Amino acid sequence: MTDSPSPSPFPSPAQVAREEALVREVVASFDGASSERLKELLGALTRHLHGFVRETRLTEAEWAAAIAFLTRCGDITDAKRQEFILLSDVLGVSMQTIAVNNSYADATEATVMGPFFVDESPHVPIGGDVAQGASGQPCWVEGTVRDTDGKPVAGARIEVWEADEDGFYDVQYGDGRVSARGHLFSDSAGRYAFWAVTPTPYPIPDDGPVGELLQAVGRSPMRASHLHFKVSAPGLHTLVTHIFVRGCEYLDRDSVFGVKESLIRSFEEQPAGAATPDGRAVEGKWSRTRFDIVLAPDRGM
Amino acid sequence: MTDSPSPSPFPSPAQVAREEALVREVVASFDGASSERLKELLGALTRHLHGFVRETRLTEAEWAAAIAFLTRCGDITDAKRQEFILLSDVLGVSMQTIAVNNSYADATEATVMGPFFVDESPHVPIGGDVAQGASGQPCWVEGTVRDTDGKPVAGARIEVWEADEDGFYDVQYGDGRVSARGHLFSDSAGRYAFWAVTPTPYPIPDDGPVGELLQAVGRSPMRASHLHFKVSAPGLHTLVTHIFVRGCEYLDRDSVFGVKESLIRSFEEQPAGAATPDGRAVEGKWSRTRFDIVLAPDRGM
Repeated sequence: MTDSPSPSPFPSPAQVAREEALVREVVASFDGASSERLKELLGALTRHLHGFVRETRLTEAEWAAAIAFLTRCGDITDAKRQEFILLSDVLGVSMQTIAVNNSYADATEATVMGPFFVDESPHVPIGGDVAQGASGQPCWVEGTVRDTDGKPVAGARIEVWEADEDGFYDVQYGDGRVSARGHLFSDSAGRYAFWAVTPTPYPIPDDGPVGELLQAVGRSPMRASHLHFKVSAPGLHTLVTHIFVRGCEYLDRDSVFGVKESLIRSFEEQPAGAATPDGRAVEGKWSRTRFDIVLAPDRGM
Repeated sequence: MTDSPSPSPFPSPAQVAREEALVREVVASFDGASSERLKELLGALTRHLHGFVRETRLTEAEWAAAIAFLTRCGDITDAKRQEFILLSDVLGVSMQTIAVNNSYADATEATVMGPFFVDESPHVPIGGDVAQGASGQPCWVEGTVRDTDGKPVAGARIEVWEADEDGFYDVQYGDGRVSARGHLFSDSAGRYAFWAVTPTPYPIPDDGPVGELLQAVGRSPMRASHLHFKVSAPGLHTLVTHIFVRGCEYLDRDSVFGVKESLIRSFEEQPAGAATPDGRAVEGKWSRTRFDIVLAPDRGM
C-alpha cells in the first residue's frame, strides 16, 4: 500500500458519491447468490464493512494492520486453539449472536458456549459427581427443569462442564483426561442434582493476537467464575448457558461479556463436616447452589 | 452452538434494549485503549459488526459457518498466498480503503495494489524492456508525470508490473524468475516510455474459500486486463494504480472492483512490421498506449 495521507474527515460530495457507488456495485455483485439468505448476509456484511472504512477514514496502514492481525489469528489457530472464536468473543459478537437467537422473555437466559464443550461426556446419575478428580472445592448443584408453562420437564438432558481450580478444562491438559464434565437426566418431577467443583476465575488464552488486543485496550483476559450448562429436551429450545458465582471480582468485566444478572447464583460455603444433601462424606469445606431452569418452546427448525 | 430457531424479524422493545445495552458495554470496554484512534477504530468495528448481527438476525449456525470460513482462510494463507487480502478484495473493502485515502479530484485515480508488488525490481532506462522474456504481445507504453499544477515531474520513480500472457506474475512461478516488472525514472520533461507486454485477463486464486464464495454468488474470479503502476516523487502523494485495456470483456465485472473509467486506455494494435517508436525490431504484431500521470500533493505524513 502507499504511504497514507492524514484521514480527510470531510469528503467532498463527489467523493461521497464515488464511495456510495462502490458500495452499491459490491452489493449488486451478490445478486446471483445461490440463496436469498446468502445475498442478504453478504449485502449486509458489505454495507457494514464499507461503513466502517468510510466512517473511520481507515488508512491504508491500518487496513494492512488488520490483514496482518487476521493472518496471525490464522497462524495460531489449530485443532485445539480457536483464535477467531476468541476474537468474536472479546468483541461481544458471540454474545450478540446468542442474544438475537434467544429472545424468550420467560425462559432462562442463554450465554456463550465457549470452545470447551465436548459432545460425548460421561453419564452420571442424579446426585453423582462430575468432578472426577478435578482440583477444587466440592460443590453441590441442584435444581429443576421446567417449561415456560411451569410444567416439570422429565428426562431433560443436562450437560455440565467447567474449569478446575487451576483454571484449565480437562481438554486443555492434552493427556486425554476427562474431568469436570458430565451429563445427567432430570427425574420425573424435573429435578436434578450433582456434585462438581466450585467455579473459579480463569483467563481466556491470551498469548496470541487477541491477548495483544486486550492488552492494548487495558482489558483483563479473565472470565468471571462460571459453570457451563447445556440443557435439551424434545420440543423445547436447547439452552446453552452458565451460572456465575455471586461475589466474583470479574462479574462486571467478564472478558467475553457473558454475564447476565439473572444467571448469578450464590454459592453458599459450608463448613467442614457439615452434613451433605446426599450423605456423601466430604473432606473440608464445600459449597452449594441452586439453579432452576426454564426452557423455551422450540419455535424454529 | 445450539440449534437455531427461525430468525425473529421483529424483536420486542425489551429485546432491542438488551441488544443495544450489549453494544454500549462492548464499546465502553475500549475506553482504556492505548490511543484515541485505536478506541475509535474498535468502537466503530464493534458497532458495525453488532449491527450486522442484529439486522440480519444472524443464526448461530451462520455464525459458526463464518468462523469456519475465516479458519479456512487462515489455513490456506502462507508466505505466497494471502486469502484475507483476497477476501477484502472481493468484498470491495480494499478498493473502498483506496477510495477514502485517494480523494484528490485533479490527480490520477488510484486502484488496488494487489499481492504481487515486489520492492526491488530491475531498473530499466527510458525506452527499455521490462518484459524480460515474459510471454505476450510486445506493448509500448509512454506518457508523462506531472503535478496537479501541470508542472512536469522529473525523476519520478515509476514501478510497473503485470501478469504474462498465461495469467501469471513472475513470483507465482516459484522458480526465482524476474520478468514483467521493473522500474524507471521520468526525464527532465517528466516523460517516460518502456516496452512491456499487452495485458491479458487472469483469475485471482480461486481454489480456496474465497473462490467458493465467488462460486456461490455466481461471480467470476477474473480480473480485467491491466498493467500496474506505482509512481512516487518527493513531496507528492505516491500513486498506486493500474491502466486497463479498453474492450476487455471483464471491465464491468472485475473481481476486485478495481476498474475506474478514467484508467481505461486504448491499446492500439500495430501490424507486424510497423515501425516502432524507438526503432526496436519487433516480430509480429505489437500494441501501444499512452498514460499521462498526475500526482497529487503529499497532504499527509
